[in-house]
Amino acid sequence: MKSEKIDIHAHIIPEHIPDLKKKYGYGGFIHLEHHRPSFANMRRDDGTFFREIGQNCWDPEWILRDMDAHQVDKMVLCTIPVLFSYWAEPAHTLDWSKYLNDHLAAVVNRFPDRFIGLGTVPMQAPDLAIEELRRCKEELGFPGIEIGTNINQLNLSEKIFDPIWAAAESLNAAILVHPWEMMGQADMQKYWLPWLVGMPAECSRAICSCIFGGVFDRYPKLKMMFCHGGGSFPFTLGRVQHGYDSRPDLCAIDVLEGPKNYVGKFWVDGITHDLKTLEFLIDLMGADKIAYGTDYPFPLGDLEHGKFIEQATSISAEVKAQIMGGTARAFLGI
Amino acid sequence: MKSEKIDIHAHIIPEHIPDLKKKYGYGGFIHLEHHRPSFANMRRDDGTFFREIGQNCWDPEWILRDMDAHQVDKMVLCTIPVLFSYWAEPAHTLDWSKYLNDHLAAVVNRFPDRFIGLGTVPMQAPDLAIEELRRCKEELGFPGIEIGTNINQLNLSEKIFDPIWAAAESLNAAILVHPWEMMGQADMQKYWLPWLVGMPAECSRAICSCIFGGVFDRYPKLKMMFCHGGGSFPFTLGRVQHGYDSRPDLCAIDVLEGPKNYVGKFWVDGITHDLKTLEFLIDLMGADKIAYGTDYPFPLGDLEHGKFIEQATSISAEVKAQIMGGTARAFLGI
Repeated sequence: MKSEKIDIHAHIIPEHIPDLKKKYGYGGFIHLEHHRPSFANMRRDDGTFFREIGQNCWDPEWILRDMDAHQVDKMVLCTIPVLFSYWAEPAHTLDWSKYLNDHLAAVVNRFPDRFIGLGTVPMQAPDLAIEELRRCKEELGFPGIEIGTNINQLNLSEKIFDPIWAAAESLNAAILVHPWEMMGQADMQKYWLPWLVGMPAECSRAICSCIFGGVFDRYPKLKMMFCHGGGSFPFTLGRVQHGYDSRPDLCAIDVLEGPKNYVGKFWVDGITHDLKTLEFLIDLMGADKIAYGTDYPFPLGDLEHGKFIEQATSISAEVKAQIMGGTARAFLGI
Repeated sequence: MKSEKIDIHAHIIPEHIPDLKKKYGYGGFIHLEHHRPSFANMRRDDGTFFREIGQNCWDPEWILRDMDAHQVDKMVLCTIPVLFSYWAEPAHTLDWSKYLNDHLAAVVNRFPDRFIGLGTVPMQAPDLAIEELRRCKEELGFPGIEIGTNINQLNLSEKIFDPIWAAAESLNAAILVHPWEMMGQADMQKYWLPWLVGMPAECSRAICSCIFGGVFDRYPKLKMMFCHGGGSFPFTLGRVQHGYDSRPDLCAIDVLEGPKNYVGKFWVDGITHDLKTLEFLIDLMGADKIAYGTDYPFPLGDLEHGKFIEQATSISAEVKAQIMGGTARAFLGI
């Protein structure tokens, strides 16, 4: 029997989005310009080009055809991080989050056996974030939310986010932590380095912040998954642990144990694009903490939908089944 | 017969340094305050505390005792990156580099069988950098220099640095690329994250910049070694390669081949603090591209001087000999 295949990490955007600059009275948002059939440009509302996307970014039926072609049973959809808009007025980010979440819920409700939604919330305003998190979980039926690796450059260790972690824990909501607003971006404009260097660093920043900030101590049942195989964290854990061991005055001020002891207390997706890297990750984290994902439909994603895992002769069928679907079920609580 | 042990990555500072603020007429430099026996505080000249260092940071005889205690045959010494001072007036950075290089040469000349020097040069002014690089190689007898992962936030791919690479190649000078002025530093002040997250990202930034910027294409005999096991690069190479494959319009504009093809064209030190991480690195890079190093005398360094490598039962004696000394000889050309 074919084991279940659940993609933990994919993105969707509504086909049309309102003119947010007009709606909220100031600029900085993204708008969609459908400039040719099956394609649209995402632009900042000052006209700056952000990226071109295709119909697979908004059309559920198109997505389903791709899923069917690659035997994907279920796909977890969330918004594109550039749409988080944590920088905006909290009430506006809440309003916009609701728009995105309602759209996502409608997609999921059309194809409830195939899609699972993770909502977005105004993280910069914890009270509002909790309000929308609760709505996502209790009204829209999402198993959780997607958030950024930093919130307007504030790390996830900041105590102002504690009420959100407390709410997520008590709601049993899963949190997918996605890199955005990448460190060093302004100085690395060439060669896509914010995506290739900054994003992996952001994932490590988020994991290290949660560890050293004591988030996993205070909220032991909180379910957090970090994107892109945990970014640079797994390979640099020796360094991170040695930092803790050698400078406890800097690293051990808010956390109960050393970083290596927190491996197993959070999840990562398996988007590594390389079998040996994935094997290293399995050895470190355990397959039950790694969920197959793609970053679909973006070009930097795994658009072969886990083929490098499925074809690996070095990974047992049992471990594959865990990574391809078992971990997602456990993480999402479905 | 015990194989040779050469530490490729260690730091030294003169015991006393001049008042640079007074000398050059503006602030921003580091000064040393010997506040208690065998210890000194490094402070910025506005009084800001940077770090406390011990006598093992300036006293060659103290260093030799540590080397003897750990059977280290030779140690490659270079300055502490905070002293690079690329931000200063070029003529002043040149003057200061000469001071540091002359001091380093004096240390090496006292113990020529035990110490090897890597100089520092005013990278922000390529003409002056080349002048001092030439002096380091031809007059002071250094096999090469140490530089930052970025130069005042400019990446190593910038064409203004090409004359330096050309000079280093023609002089057969080795370049150790050390993380400094870390991305995201301002937003990651807690928990030592600039060192634990920013530094690994900087190493990847430098490697990716040299690859994508075509540096290894234009200077095929240039010898560059990147610190800390290459930082986050090795674990994220799958992602970096996939970036190149999927968005050649962004990544393949200045480089001839894909990133994976450049593995083997540069070196890394072996400072990983973790055997499995080192094994992953050996498998990826080959032992002939990995040199044992420590980051001595700093607490984040491997102050057990490669014990985790020497004691590893999973690494052959041949591979150990290569990493512990053979690679350093080949890289330095000694």
